[in-house]
Amino acid sequence: MKHATTIDELKLILDDEMGNLANGAYLEKVLTPGFVDKRIYAIYLIETYHYTYHNARNQALVATRPERGDVRYMKYCLKHAMEEAGHELMALHDLKKAGYSTVDYKLMEDSDLPRPLMATEVLISYLYRVSTTGNPLARLGYSFWAERVYEYLAPLMLMFGHLGVEKSAMTFLTDHSSIDQEHAIEVNRAINMFAKTEQDWIDIENCMKTSLRLKARVMDAVFEEFVKLKEGTSDRYSFLNK
Amino acid sequence: MKHATTIDELKLILDDEMGNLANGAYLEKVLTPGFVDKRIYAIYLIETYHYTYHNARNQALVATRPERGDVRYMKYCLKHAMEEAGHELMALHDLKKAGYSTVDYKLMEDSDLPRPLMATEVLISYLYRVSTTGNPLARLGYSFWAERVYEYLAPLMLMFGHLGVEKSAMTFLTDHSSIDQEHAIEVNRAINMFAKTEQDWIDIENCMKTSLRLKARVMDAVFEEFVKLKEGTSDRYSFLNK
Amino acid sequence: MKHATTIDELKLILDDEMGNLANGAYLEKVLTPGFVDKRIYAIYLIETYHYTYHNARNQALVATRPERGDVRYMKYCLKHAMEEAGHELMALHDLKKAGYSTVDYKLMEDSDLPRPLMATEVLISYLYRVSTTGNPLARLGYSFWAERVYEYLAPLMLMFGHLGVEKSAMTFLTDHSSIDQEHAIEVNRAINMFAKTEQDWIDIENCMKTSLRLKARVMDAVFEEFVKLKEGTSDRYSFLNK
Amino acid sequence: MKHATTIDELKLILDDEMGNLANGAYLEKVLTPGFVDKRIYAIYLIETYHYTYHNARNQALVATRPERGDVRYMKYCLKHAMEEAGHELMALHDLKKAGYSTVDYKLMEDSDLPRPLMATEVLISYLYRVSTTGNPLARLGYSFWAERVYEYLAPLMLMFGHLGVEKSAMTFLTDHSSIDQEHAIEVNRAINMFAKTEQDWIDIENCMKTSLRLKARVMDAVFEEFVKLKEGTSDRYSFLNK
Repeated sequence: MKHATTIDELKLILDDEMGNLANGAYLEKVLTPGFVDKRIYAIYLIETYHYTYHNARNQALVATRPERGDVRYMKYCLKHAMEEAGHELMALHDLKKAGYSTVDYKLMEDSDLPRPLMATEVLISYLYRVSTTGNPLARLGYSFWAERVYEYLAPLMLMFGHLGVEKSAMTFLTDHSSIDQEHAIEVNRAINMFAKTEQDWIDIENCMKTSLRLKARVMDAVFEEFVKLKEGTSDRYSFLNK
Repeated sequence: MKHATTIDELKLILDDEMGNLANGAYLEKVLTPGFVDKRIYAIYLIETYHYTYHNARNQALVATRPERGDVRYMKYCLKHAMEEAGHELMALHDLKKAGYSTVDYKLMEDSDLPRPLMATEVLISYLYRVSTTGNPLARLGYSFWAERVYEYLAPLMLMFGHLGVEKSAMTFLTDHSSIDQEHAIEVNRAINMFAKTEQDWIDIENCMKTSLRLKARVMDAVFEEFVKLKEGTSDRYSFLNK
Repeated sequence: MKHATTIDELKLILDDEMGNLANGAYLEKVLTPGFVDKRIYAIYLIETYHYTYHNARNQALVATRPERGDVRYMKYCLKHAMEEAGHELMALHDLKKAGYSTVDYKLMEDSDLPRPLMATEVLISYLYRVSTTGNPLARLGYSFWAERVYEYLAPLMLMFGHLGVEKSAMTFLTDHSSIDQEHAIEVNRAINMFAKTEQDWIDIENCMKTSLRLKARVMDAVFEEFVKLKEGTSDRYSFLNK
Repeated sequence: MKHATTIDELKLILDDEMGNLANGAYLEKVLTPGFVDKRIYAIYLIETYHYTYHNARNQALVATRPERGDVRYMKYCLKHAMEEAGHELMALHDLKKAGYSTVDYKLMEDSDLPRPLMATEVLISYLYRVSTTGNPLARLGYSFWAERVYEYLAPLMLMFGHLGVEKSAMTFLTDHSSIDQEHAIEVNRAINMFAKTEQDWIDIENCMKTSLRLKARVMDAVFEEFVKLKEGTSDRYSFLNK
């Protein structure tokens, strides 16, 4: 097992991981015409809301670690957290725009939404832990894929379009595509600037893989919940049946 | 989806989950004569050490939650944490007894061991989060299966025996079987005493399922690492080849 | 400045600190016949409730520190936390018994009481920090004086008696006198068992002094609030005027 | 006791608090010609380093609170934290410039400095607690005085100048005077924007008073340590005697 020690090598590993995910058992069904409908987008948005709510928080926590570290990394974390703050509201906005909510998203309470699915709770748990323990640089591995995930999401957006989701209800996906292009460059720069040791690179790579796989499990869970909703075996998302 | 609201119903759901795990893809291979050897026990012990290290800590954290709760539940958590404290040392003891370490386990540093596998880190992350956020009763769902898991582990212990692991190198497994019998009764009593609302039962059940599935992923990862070690595609555990 | 390296030396430093406190500016006034009345006992109980609420919590936090430490110290902390859990309810009980509350103390919400005074908040803050950062042994310095403070409190209890507070409304003070005698022995034993280095002793001594001085500031603040109540310059505790 | 509900009223209370501090017992001695010397500046810088180290950290923690709050306040906290990050290095720079250190401040380890004085540790403890519990707005009360303290510090800076401290060794004080002027305006704006309820104003005011008084205790402790150093009754800062 060879570990990445450059951005390019990290990118190759990411491509490899993404390739594995593309072979996931559910993807074929998702792409089968007529199998899914717009409700899967709503479930996706709800889970996106939940983990995104914590992104700025766990990013900021990296900057509060008690150890003396590089002040520039501390500032990087805070700047990045500031830019991510409130992004979960875009997911709520899209949910409303897609026709699933009439309440104002600014006032919408967490309690109005179903609580996070297990898989989402697990992703959130991991991101808090990696942000508060171990190598403070590790979380860069999450940013590494999260900020460039949108280049892999083109087929997904296309599919949501086919399901009848309009552009105006895809702000989370489309705005992130452009915002994150710049972020991806900053993440590369940060990794190059702050990762000094082989262990730093290993920890960043491990966090990349772990958080990506947990995110893939969230996507699986979204699909599984959609199937339950479609088959009527769960009423968790029955408020989406209108 | 029907939620448990009694211990018996919770037990039925647990049996169901355990049944699903018993059909896991790896189990057949594990039971194929000659496929695995004693090194898989060592890998299992190392991961067991890692997550067990945190059990007393995350259990105690439940008692430190700022909310005013039932003082008896606080005491239950502290007593239970006290009883779990240091159990990870049994896993180290067993590792040594099984012939994999010559250093004294009391002095053995974490740094002597490979770091936790991703799957183990994820389990640890979840247990910290469930212990520090949300419903303080939820973690009882982890105890519910963890304290009675040994009744499901008989085949595993038998297999380890066939691999040449002696009784004296299985203290973690055998002692827990007896210690935990009493604990299981206490957990039942605690759930009956403190779970008041339907949401309490749901949260306990969710934690049971989530932590059990994450533990199953740890077992899968142990197997996967064993295969890599056997096939020589990873040197992570090469110190076990003697 | 000589630091203690034995229990006896620590006790001498404590005696010295206590002696300084006994010369505090307010003590003379407190002991002047007719100056204070039973309401000062009520204010004292309210602040006692507030910081005692956190004692078991911050004690338990010491056992959750991520560093590998002596398992016996971990168990000591958990056992001690278990014994302290819920002691704040004795202060509420006494408040009620002293005639200041008709609500059942088991149901009484924090929100029914005035929030902690600044000085109390500062003591609480320090105890959380010393329990979660720096030398995990340091908090023993708090226990060292807190568990034997009752030997210094005889004059105070006498005074409260003169103010008309009955024995049955002094359970916090009287029960602690007896409970804590045993605890004091355990704290001595713990310090002797776990303090290995000069720095350990210094950290224990510093915590002893700091927490004791902050507690003295709480007592000063109680007196100051009583004076404001008596002179009618604050209505914070006006519900005590019946 | 009247609570502030406008910035102007808060400022009046601050002036009042500052006036009380100006009557502190030690100030007369400090201003007596020949009583203090440059070493008191060094002690002041060391304690300033210690609590400033935590300012960006505890400020960032406010933004990580789990409760849903106003996203704009979250961003304010992160921006402010970013601007405060690394300011402790100015105190180390000044210490060196004032002739008290030959090591490069970028490499200087915490362990090279005496640990924080009790009073400093108490201030740090309080700031962490107020940042992580209770009203998330409360910490604005700390910023309210801290960002404008430099208008009160003119006499102090004059005195340090008389002791022979050069301008180039007062970057922490002088740069903050200008940086913080802008910050003070932002803090006013933030309080006006985010404080909605009477309780918000009370919590901000309480934090202002508490943190200011704890900071005054730090200044007292600096003086007390100077006296001990001068009289030779403590060797804590003897490395300043060159």
